Amino acid sequence: MSIEEGSLPLGIDETMRLQYEVEQLYSRYAAAIDDGRLDEWPEFFTEACFYAIVPRDNFERGLPLAVMRCESRDMLKDRARAIRETMMYEPRYVRHQITNVRIERVDESIHAQANYAVFEVLMDELPKVLSVGRSIDLIRREPDGALRFREKRAVYDSVLVPNSIIYPL
Amino acid sequence: MSIEEGSLPLGIDETMRLQYEVEQLYSRYAAAIDDGRLDEWPEFFTEACFYAIVPRDNFERGLPLAVMRCESRDMLKDRARAIRETMMYEPRYVRHQITNVRIERVDESIHAQANYAVFEVLMDELPKVLSVGRSIDLIRREPDGALRFREKRAVYDSVLVPNSIIYPL
Amino acid sequence: MSIEEGSLPLGIDETMRLQYEVEQLYSRYAAAIDDGRLDEWPEFFTEACFYAIVPRDNFERGLPLAVMRCESRDMLKDRARAIRETMMYEPRYVRHQITNVRIERVDESIHAQANYAVFEVLMDELPKVLSVGRSIDLIRREPDGALRFREKRAVYDSVLVPNSIIYPL
Repeated sequence: MSIEEGSLPLGIDETMRLQYEVEQLYSRYAAAIDDGRLDEWPEFFTEACFYAIVPRDNFERGLPLAVMRCESRDMLKDRARAIRETMMYEPRYVRHQITNVRIERVDESIHAQANYAVFEVLMDELPKVLSVGRSIDLIRREPDGALRFREKRAVYDSVLVPNSIIYPL
Repeated sequence: MSIEEGSLPLGIDETMRLQYEVEQLYSRYAAAIDDGRLDEWPEFFTEACFYAIVPRDNFERGLPLAVMRCESRDMLKDRARAIRETMMYEPRYVRHQITNVRIERVDESIHAQANYAVFEVLMDELPKVLSVGRSIDLIRREPDGALRFREKRAVYDSVLVPNSIIYPL
Repeated sequence: MSIEEGSLPLGIDETMRLQYEVEQLYSRYAAAIDDGRLDEWPEFFTEACFYAIVPRDNFERGLPLAVMRCESRDMLKDRARAIRETMMYEPRYVRHQITNVRIERVDESIHAQANYAVFEVLMDELPKVLSVGRSIDLIRREPDGALRFREKRAVYDSVLVPNSIIYPL
């Protein structure tokens, strides 16, 4: 169960510590979005970063189409501001479950994947499943000791594009 | 990633142990309800305790309205008995997923939050999402070493009250 | 929170290591199915093994009816081949969330349970909840050090059998 770090495998204790930290990163990422603290969302990324929401069919065929794509933390900030200020959509809540976190490899980045389900609740409706899929991520440890996403791809299990992915996945 | 205990931060190993114990508390709490062992449900709480199911809108506006509210372990026992004995409802199963557990702070209590999804299965139907939201909890370590809920608020992401929250969330 | 191993309780550190390994087993099991790597699915089981998908009503009454049942790794391989090659069904994706893992006891096997939700995405539809329930498992450590399922029962919360459980749960 140990994880290769370069040519050097991490021991079980280091592996478990890293797993704990990566799981906390995902949990706090989910909480920030679900609580509506969108201004904190870009802080989960490194300054040079890549974020995209990609349909699984396209991802597997190597096609570049993305539903949402940001290529720096500044673009994430613009996106967060647009969501908060424009509000050209019906009010809603979202709720993430990010589970089954798997660290695949550690080199200059931590290569991690997780399963996600995002539920959406509109004002007078019961909750529904908005999107399920896989998060495929590169995570970096930054000089302040914090883990942040260098690359994050939310690959959703669908050909159909939901008409309204407003909040980040 | 360390957690502040009073003015004293816990080390990484203690933090991880606490995380493990808190996650197990949530998992066993979910299993007791989902398996229909409702008589065990009150045992997850301290004797003086508070449990409420609260719509998110009300919670965020500081309004006291709750769908279910119990203010002691004895009230939880009454509630559990009522659910088991009255049975004035169509038989159903519930299934919890309690995920992304976050310990926010440790003082005389452990301040923890988690995301939840509760699915409901009626007899001749496929499963549906009954409720999603956040559990906002104070957890105490009791003299027998066990962790129990001192306060538990299931804050569900909805304005609409489902017509039938029968089992605890 | 320690786990009994025979008459000897495991310490907290060993308990947490085992929890970590069992959680990783579930996560990698889920990923193999969800990614469509069905040829890897039998490798999560010991050679002599038992796998069944069982409706909860039947399970609780001790009735043997199962929706899917395999009694060796070879049968799992046959099943995986049939799913991949026959394709007499509409293309779809599945996505697991396996959560709230509980190790109940350790003797010659690790007795573990987990909650699961499986979502299904058909080509032109939004995701729906296909099945929720509990996985009740016996896990063995094999001579190569890996954990594998000796017995796995996916007990789903339903009386109704979905018309199309194609992929394993």
